[in-house]
Amino acid sequence: MNINRLAIIGTGLIGGSLARALRVAGDVNEIIGYGRHPDKLQTAVDLGVIDRGCVTVAEAVEDADVVVVATPVGVMDGIFSQLAQAITEEAIITDVGSVKTGVINQARDALGDAFSRFVPGHPIAGTEQSGVEASFAELFQDHCVILTPAAETDPVATALIETMWESTGAQVEIMDADEHDEVMAACSHAPHVLAYALVDLLVRQDNHRQVFNFAAGGFRDFTRIASSSPEMWRDISLHNSEALVKVLADYRDNLDDIIQMIAEGDDKNLLDTYQRAKHARDEYLLNRKNHD
Amino acid sequence: MNINRLAIIGTGLIGGSLARALRVAGDVNEIIGYGRHPDKLQTAVDLGVIDRGCVTVAEAVEDADVVVVATPVGVMDGIFSQLAQAITEEAIITDVGSVKTGVINQARDALGDAFSRFVPGHPIAGTEQSGVEASFAELFQDHCVILTPAAETDPVATALIETMWESTGAQVEIMDADEHDEVMAACSHAPHVLAYALVDLLVRQDNHRQVFNFAAGGFRDFTRIASSSPEMWRDISLHNSEALVKVLADYRDNLDDIIQMIAEGDDKNLLDTYQRAKHARDEYLLNRKNHD
Repeated sequence: MNINRLAIIGTGLIGGSLARALRVAGDVNEIIGYGRHPDKLQTAVDLGVIDRGCVTVAEAVEDADVVVVATPVGVMDGIFSQLAQAITEEAIITDVGSVKTGVINQARDALGDAFSRFVPGHPIAGTEQSGVEASFAELFQDHCVILTPAAETDPVATALIETMWESTGAQVEIMDADEHDEVMAACSHAPHVLAYALVDLLVRQDNHRQVFNFAAGGFRDFTRIASSSPEMWRDISLHNSEALVKVLADYRDNLDDIIQMIAEGDDKNLLDTYQRAKHARDEYLLNRKNHD
Repeated sequence: MNINRLAIIGTGLIGGSLARALRVAGDVNEIIGYGRHPDKLQTAVDLGVIDRGCVTVAEAVEDADVVVVATPVGVMDGIFSQLAQAITEEAIITDVGSVKTGVINQARDALGDAFSRFVPGHPIAGTEQSGVEASFAELFQDHCVILTPAAETDPVATALIETMWESTGAQVEIMDADEHDEVMAACSHAPHVLAYALVDLLVRQDNHRQVFNFAAGGFRDFTRIASSSPEMWRDISLHNSEALVKVLADYRDNLDDIIQMIAEGDDKNLLDTYQRAKHARDEYLLNRKNHD
């Protein structure tokens, strides 16, 4: 494949890493970056991530073949409206949002005819870091990218975005947007909320100095995702609220059952629960290792 | 310091690592291991962790200067009763249990006069692995060991156990047993229960294959402690049930508040919560790095 001009709307960790990966693959002639802050765009230019930075969307997408919306989910709505005014009639658009149903609805409303050339996407990759300084070309290597085309999506557009992601070393899966949001609520969004909830609770306790002082490796790993961007996770939480509230409510109910087992000394059911979890987690790790 | 004969009751990850560390430090002449399974004791001998294995407590502690109870918390009660019959009048006893108040009460009941020579202890170290094969001499290096002497505990005994742990590279802190149990409920026991609760919930969902298939690094780290020994964590949960139920109930209430923020689209309070958590977690990590 060859993309003559690629526009990256939001050159942070994901947008920056995609730009780097496509450049390494030799699949793109020119990369234009959009961002609100000229100094951050200059950093992206200095790092060789983009060729040129623009502070207006219209300028950034001029004559672009492919436009990648890689902003936080919370501002995509406004970006789509600006895109509708500015893109060529051939440009293929995709996004990297962690939530799909809400983003698709916003894109459908804003993009008009161009919606058929919008391929909703979600690379399952990232770190708790953010910003173009944290970006690297290998971020997507052996990671999954989920595409959730709508009924109106042009299969040719989907095929092009699939090829683009494959050239970064990612494995592409096609999935229904609702299913994607439920799966992500369970395996990604809920763990983030649960980690934030624990750290937030503990820091407000009287003994928080001792608690953090004696916290060891288990706590460090459990709470790693609580160092993620609060703004990004507020947006994801609110944009996937339906699926997320459901899984969190189920979690709270399961926790209630476990609290009762502990309070009542129900050793049998407590052991069953822990064993079931350990077995599932060990199996997950095994499959993951086989997968790598 | 020099220990002529050290008895390790339970030669698993912690007991085995302590034996290795004291041997490396040259602080012990002879190490006797107790265990129920002759083949596991033989493995410990073959690995050079202990000099000799015994399948009765009485035999293992014969002429021992120091006895370390490193079994799961759930069987310590029975061990203390056997110790009371078998130890010399000079032997110093300590344990490595993750819970202190319950263990102290059991020891007080079982040990009689020897209770004054019992120094309750808890090395804040470990991995999700278990067994003597996973033991290594450096496990306690730069880790904290908390000692929680009771009113009756002989200060000479406490000083000896403090010196023993320091020679493994650990930093020793003295703390009240109740305070220890509350702090550990918050920073260690609760995270384990919360991780077990999530994996247990997800594996019972209809879409669990997809959920585990797309689970990425955040999930892997969040759930690492759910691969810990279910038997060990059942014991810890039930032996520290009072402090643990309290922190888990507080957690559930905090989670309820957060679920409500998400359901109601309360972006301001949700962001406040996530920001407070990120700030506390980043600060914890910074202090930890400075500490290492």
